[in-house]
Amino acid sequence: MGMLTIKSRSHDYSVEEFQELGAALASITDRHRACYLIDLRFADHYARALQSAIPAERAVYVEAAEEQKSFEALTSIFFEVLKRNLKRDGVLAVIGGGVLQDIGCFVATVLFRGVRWELVPTTLLAQADSCIGSKSSINIGSYKNQIGTFYPPHRVLLTPDVLATLPWDEIRSGLGEVIKLQLLAGEAGLRELMEDLRGFHGQPEILSKWVGRSLQVKKPYIEADEFDRGIRNLLNYGHTFGHAYESATHYGIPHGLGVILGILTATYLSSRLGLAPPEHYAELKTLLAPWHQPYGKVLQKAPREQIFQAIRRDKKNTGQAVNCIITRGFGRMEKRATPFEEQIIPAVNNFIENELGSG
Amino acid sequence: MGMLTIKSRSHDYSVEEFQELGAALASITDRHRACYLIDLRFADHYARALQSAIPAERAVYVEAAEEQKSFEALTSIFFEVLKRNLKRDGVLAVIGGGVLQDIGCFVATVLFRGVRWELVPTTLLAQADSCIGSKSSINIGSYKNQIGTFYPPHRVLLTPDVLATLPWDEIRSGLGEVIKLQLLAGEAGLRELMEDLRGFHGQPEILSKWVGRSLQVKKPYIEADEFDRGIRNLLNYGHTFGHAYESATHYGIPHGLGVILGILTATYLSSRLGLAPPEHYAELKTLLAPWHQPYGKVLQKAPREQIFQAIRRDKKNTGQAVNCIITRGFGRMEKRATPFEEQIIPAVNNFIENELGSG
Repeated sequence: MGMLTIKSRSHDYSVEEFQELGAALASITDRHRACYLIDLRFADHYARALQSAIPAERAVYVEAAEEQKSFEALTSIFFEVLKRNLKRDGVLAVIGGGVLQDIGCFVATVLFRGVRWELVPTTLLAQADSCIGSKSSINIGSYKNQIGTFYPPHRVLLTPDVLATLPWDEIRSGLGEVIKLQLLAGEAGLRELMEDLRGFHGQPEILSKWVGRSLQVKKPYIEADEFDRGIRNLLNYGHTFGHAYESATHYGIPHGLGVILGILTATYLSSRLGLAPPEHYAELKTLLAPWHQPYGKVLQKAPREQIFQAIRRDKKNTGQAVNCIITRGFGRMEKRATPFEEQIIPAVNNFIENELGSG
Repeated sequence: MGMLTIKSRSHDYSVEEFQELGAALASITDRHRACYLIDLRFADHYARALQSAIPAERAVYVEAAEEQKSFEALTSIFFEVLKRNLKRDGVLAVIGGGVLQDIGCFVATVLFRGVRWELVPTTLLAQADSCIGSKSSINIGSYKNQIGTFYPPHRVLLTPDVLATLPWDEIRSGLGEVIKLQLLAGEAGLRELMEDLRGFHGQPEILSKWVGRSLQVKKPYIEADEFDRGIRNLLNYGHTFGHAYESATHYGIPHGLGVILGILTATYLSSRLGLAPPEHYAELKTLLAPWHQPYGKVLQKAPREQIFQAIRRDKKNTGQAVNCIITRGFGRMEKRATPFEEQIIPAVNNFIENELGSG
């Protein structure tokens, strides 16, 4: 049960593991009076478990689409929650992946200036990465992820069984962050992960193992730097480029797969700058190829101008340089202000044109 | 200058006093790159001082109307701020009264998950009360103040000169909170205030004195209980009723004047319940009459049903009872769950029908 406890400036919170979804839902605090935000597609797959645990009139279904994760779309979600008469001392239960988590976290932060919320993450990405760390990201108009809050759930309820039904690309998307965390942790973890992934075809016990391992790597970063002003920045390894790839393809590349392509870009850039040995980049290129194909081809078709625009717009930038995370090898990431025109543009161009050959 | 320092879980912040508006504006951090949210009407009155200190293209003008303080209206304000290319390390400067502060605080809290902001409060109410304590309140649809955040400005810049041009009812509205704070502080402060208000006709030196005194009373409450879970609740003395009076008259009663009427209602209720001596209520009724007239008449015309609906909807309620602040006399306020049907309804009905005789 109490797998981990995470310290936070708002409140400490627990990550708990349950054998199955039904047990997790039954444990939600004050569950007959809670208000539930539920991923619409997940609700289709797990209708029976949800119906037997959740009073129908307490549920609000939300489509897990990028457009729903916008400030404009939040208004009607607030109305749905308020109409269910959720009170200051009530609980908002959030069941879904990253989009639901972003929406739920934002709503919980600002409703009554902060209401208790509990999270049942239903994707590998949410279980292995985003469920801890307390961030929400909301779009507004064409500005992506510029609005958000830091407000962790009061409980995170993990259920390995829901990972068994995920589509292959959603599993790979989650693996993107799992891979990133093991690269940050050093060489041994990544090699063990790659070993486990040989012949992997979605076995839940392997996923469950790496969910736990991932959260253990992430925990000290977010506890030391909850508000992302220092060491936590390193968790953005691969993200400056990954986000740009996602948005320039109109989310045709799933997040974690964009991150893998972003990790390769950042490592390629690091190697061009003489920071990482070329062999390190070459090894990652080979190791990670099965985990991003064929999205390299999708990336090659994206309008280059939109990629660069998205990189420039990244909220982590401060001036003419792009603050991106470079690497000197396994476990040796650092933040570096990298000149946009002179270094970022040619590296990204070369990476996309020459390093994704087979797609 | 450094009049007060307020401790907060987000960051400590200073309240600083300036001789005049120009000096305050000149001191705004990184002022040529800041983005300014400015009360439209204030900008009319102080066009020259604003123009000489603020680059025209950095200013966003906002009408200080209740409808602007809504979740729906925030979208376009975010666009205006983002269009001015405010960055993560930039400053949002907010110049105005309560509505601008609510909007500015909310925007600053969630933009880039929290951006630096500095506040120049331009009304007595904002200077003497709301500028410290870090709350924002935002409406959504017909739900009032249900959305909000706790996020103090990084600096509060007080300028007594702007109080000289306030309309009389805005001064009285600010005095509502000044009176409330002195009632909380005990008998001596209230008597000194009433002495100063004899023959008062808006002298800035009197206002300036009571701005300082008010903030000193408020400071320990918000420092001890920033998130309003305990002793800070007492600052809501008069507010459960005051808010209802405001909203049932469609903001025909200014906030602080609603608070004075609300203080009288709460004291009347306390006296009916045998908690406060009847003489205490009788004395306040006489002392405060000049400071709310003729809004008693406005209140008498308000649909009673809407008043009760607003009291029931108050976000501080938890069940069938209304959590309101009662009083046992000067400086002796406490929170009390008060049954709605049996005690609140008859007290409010009697107060409005029989205690506002002369209006």
